[in-house]
Amino acid sequence: MEQNNTWIQTLSLTPPTLQDNTADADRLAGELSRILTGQVQPHLVKTELHLLRRLPDLLRKWEYHVRCVLFRDHDHWVLTGITHAEDARPVTGLAIDLGTTRVVLRLVELSSGQALGESSFDNPQITVAPDILARIHHTDTEGGLAELSDLIIHGLNEQIASLCKSCDIIPDDIYLLSLAGNTAMTHLFMGLNPRWIIREPYIPVVNTPGLVKADELGIRVNPLARMLIFPNVGSYFGGDLIAGILFSGMNTAEETAILVDVGTNAEVVLGNKNWLIACAGAAGPALEGGVTRMGMMAGPGAIDKVIIDPKTRHFDIHTIGDVQPKGICGSGLIDLAAHLFLSGMVDIRGRLLPSACDGCLKQKDGVWHLVVIPAAASATGEDLTISQIDLDSLIRSKAAMYTILETIASSVGMALSELSTFYVAGTFGSFINPISAISIGMIPDLPLTAYQSLGNSSLGGATLALTSADCMEEISSIRDRITYLELNVNQEFMNRFSAAKFLPHTTPSLFPSVRVRG
Amino acid sequence: MEQNNTWIQTLSLTPPTLQDNTADADRLAGELSRILTGQVQPHLVKTELHLLRRLPDLLRKWEYHVRCVLFRDHDHWVLTGITHAEDARPVTGLAIDLGTTRVVLRLVELSSGQALGESSFDNPQITVAPDILARIHHTDTEGGLAELSDLIIHGLNEQIASLCKSCDIIPDDIYLLSLAGNTAMTHLFMGLNPRWIIREPYIPVVNTPGLVKADELGIRVNPLARMLIFPNVGSYFGGDLIAGILFSGMNTAEETAILVDVGTNAEVVLGNKNWLIACAGAAGPALEGGVTRMGMMAGPGAIDKVIIDPKTRHFDIHTIGDVQPKGICGSGLIDLAAHLFLSGMVDIRGRLLPSACDGCLKQKDGVWHLVVIPAAASATGEDLTISQIDLDSLIRSKAAMYTILETIASSVGMALSELSTFYVAGTFGSFINPISAISIGMIPDLPLTAYQSLGNSSLGGATLALTSADCMEEISSIRDRITYLELNVNQEFMNRFSAAKFLPHTTPSLFPSVRVRG
Repeated sequence: MEQNNTWIQTLSLTPPTLQDNTADADRLAGELSRILTGQVQPHLVKTELHLLRRLPDLLRKWEYHVRCVLFRDHDHWVLTGITHAEDARPVTGLAIDLGTTRVVLRLVELSSGQALGESSFDNPQITVAPDILARIHHTDTEGGLAELSDLIIHGLNEQIASLCKSCDIIPDDIYLLSLAGNTAMTHLFMGLNPRWIIREPYIPVVNTPGLVKADELGIRVNPLARMLIFPNVGSYFGGDLIAGILFSGMNTAEETAILVDVGTNAEVVLGNKNWLIACAGAAGPALEGGVTRMGMMAGPGAIDKVIIDPKTRHFDIHTIGDVQPKGICGSGLIDLAAHLFLSGMVDIRGRLLPSACDGCLKQKDGVWHLVVIPAAASATGEDLTISQIDLDSLIRSKAAMYTILETIASSVGMALSELSTFYVAGTFGSFINPISAISIGMIPDLPLTAYQSLGNSSLGGATLALTSADCMEEISSIRDRITYLELNVNQEFMNRFSAAKFLPHTTPSLFPSVRVRG
Repeated sequence: MEQNNTWIQTLSLTPPTLQDNTADADRLAGELSRILTGQVQPHLVKTELHLLRRLPDLLRKWEYHVRCVLFRDHDHWVLTGITHAEDARPVTGLAIDLGTTRVVLRLVELSSGQALGESSFDNPQITVAPDILARIHHTDTEGGLAELSDLIIHGLNEQIASLCKSCDIIPDDIYLLSLAGNTAMTHLFMGLNPRWIIREPYIPVVNTPGLVKADELGIRVNPLARMLIFPNVGSYFGGDLIAGILFSGMNTAEETAILVDVGTNAEVVLGNKNWLIACAGAAGPALEGGVTRMGMMAGPGAIDKVIIDPKTRHFDIHTIGDVQPKGICGSGLIDLAAHLFLSGMVDIRGRLLPSACDGCLKQKDGVWHLVVIPAAASATGEDLTISQIDLDSLIRSKAAMYTILETIASSVGMALSELSTFYVAGTFGSFINPISAISIGMIPDLPLTAYQSLGNSSLGGATLALTSADCMEEISSIRDRITYLELNVNQEFMNRFSAAKFLPHTTPSLFPSVRVRG
């Protein structure tokens, strides 16, 4: 078996003799420390009581030829598992992306780094409260914190059991875990009181939880297993983003890149190997498709792509699963807005132009609605429409996003055009069409090659922590290097925001590639 | 309250603000690390989940004014307790001397270092097997290890509860513990398999257990409490001796000293601040009073002092508790042998001289017995006698002891006369009369001021670990510096032993102070 991962060490100890009577645990820890650091320093490798009690029998049974699983906790290592060197059972780790809405698990074979399987489930806390704020408020009720904590722990345990089953292993084969989530979800998972996260001055219980025994958390895997809980920078910049930065690699690059994760908030990180600056702001709901009447999460029947022929104004619509449309998701909405603008059906303020929309406009309660899909063609049996109010909301969101990007860049004296790479994280990033997002001025007018979609970067970062031992230091270093920029909604911000409320912008020279052909 | 002990830190944290939003745990750990190391390094102070869950409420209730209890584990600290800075409840630690026969506890108020109380009890494992070897063999039986482990854990828990009660505290007030015992007793206490301690090549499970959660060991004190388990050098040089060395201070002295602990084995350490050399050998049983027919442990009715007038040969006898004699303990036996020799009642080979013993000798099965206490004066109603066989045995023991001392000194090219200090540990050391021990040539003929009795040095060292944070490094350093000298019973050893079988020695010039007046 190839040994790529330094969390796994296969070694043959020199058996004890009268001349070399070092104890079993110290013999093992000494040799491990020598391999890991070049020096025999047994105190750097911790062996817990539970393992000490079995160690002498195991070492003798295996004739001192062993495979060890280690995990690093700052200046020392913890021995989280030991097997015979030639044991055929896989040694695995589990990466967890703990989302507010969705939780994703990835099981990894540790010595090869290969993913054995993946599964996901709705965060069961949704049954108690849909969003972060409501969940935190729920912890103020009697037993509320325990209830939310138990829900996610039990949910994870069930999911782990079934993922293991489908991969033909048992939970005892899991020796390392990593978990990346936002600060609030991480707190609820650990049973920590999140009360002060949402109250000024917005203080988490802990920034750097480090390694915790899975057993102590109630997670049913190998009893020796440790879980790395990704650190946060504060209440509004969580471990999921640290994991995302790690996954992007921007933290080790010479050139300055930006990473954008769009959820309920837009979270933005700008930086390179020398510095990292981060901020977050409300920009998301409209972009996620959450605020329009026809909006929906990405899923079967959601319109995810729209093209409007600028001459014929014919709508070319694509839905997820190629079924009858029943709503529109974020990427579809951005496509739609971009093409309405490019084909001249809305003006630079985003106003629907009756003269250009032919028979597609209907007025309802004094507000213009554009019929995207007529009732006859929709899955709901009703017109799927987008209203002027929806468009206004989308424009505020895209303006907020662009303003945040401009603000963070200008805080370090950069123009957005200087960016080498623009990472987009999350499912939003996977589906959005950058040309459309540029067309409405939501993101800067960079060469298309600059845009990189990271997919589930939180899960990706969590996986790296399991498969590459070097990441451990990098995670701490990312956290410690990040400067969090408080977005002050001052006059300058408002000026930028106002300028960004046009399509694509009041300064068209910022978007040279955008040409309205209507 | 005076703050002598760096395990206790009283501090006022700067409360969080919008500009300083460090999390609660990191804020506390950062400030503690600053106090302890001069630098803000929150990862150096570990706060476990159980405490994290209560921390935000506690910090706010106490307005960030707290008293913290810490314990050091090599390169980091563990937060084992937190109270309001002005809390009146005492913060205490418990030192344990885990003897094969007797277990001694000392409760210490941590900030002052003052002992609150002490108690002791028989090691309850005695009910299963009297000595180390028998206990280790008992672990080969089904459930034997668990039985022995449970006995001592339950015994300690009961004793802790009653000691706390008598000191008007509760077990929850105990935040730090330290335990010093021989390697086998420490293994049984931790539930570690001691099987290979007594089988060639004599390998313990662990040399350096470090800090262990008291809770994980089953010890009922504060759930956050940690126990320092003194390290061992090998199967035959345990944590009790490391504690003894620490307590003596020989490890930091310029001049070379020797430390002797006489139990079943004689354990000897020679050294100074630069080097330490140790060995152990069978020398004890006769000295402990364990092998003579009238021998007994020190206790009421035991003859502990004997003086024989060299002219009148009148016996002046003292017993513990000033009651009728029922036996003789180690110190009494050494006195007796010394005075028999000094008064000319035995010759330089230790043979009873009928001509000099007047009517005190009786022959039984062809062996001379000296009546020390006639039946009429003894508590048993029978003569208390010492036989030629008993004397021969004592002389072999004293010769073994002296030979061990000579061997260890000569291993570093020293003569015993060069020693600045001769520490004698244990109850044996507390009661022995050095003049008598010198007279029979058991210990070297040093000025009386060189002899220092340490009392229970194992408990003393364990106490130091609780009251002086500097000791932590010193304990590791002592362990790592000790060279263990294997006593090879070769021709040179046998020559020394033969020479030492005389009273005081075949070379009387080694004992210039000893003058036979008989």
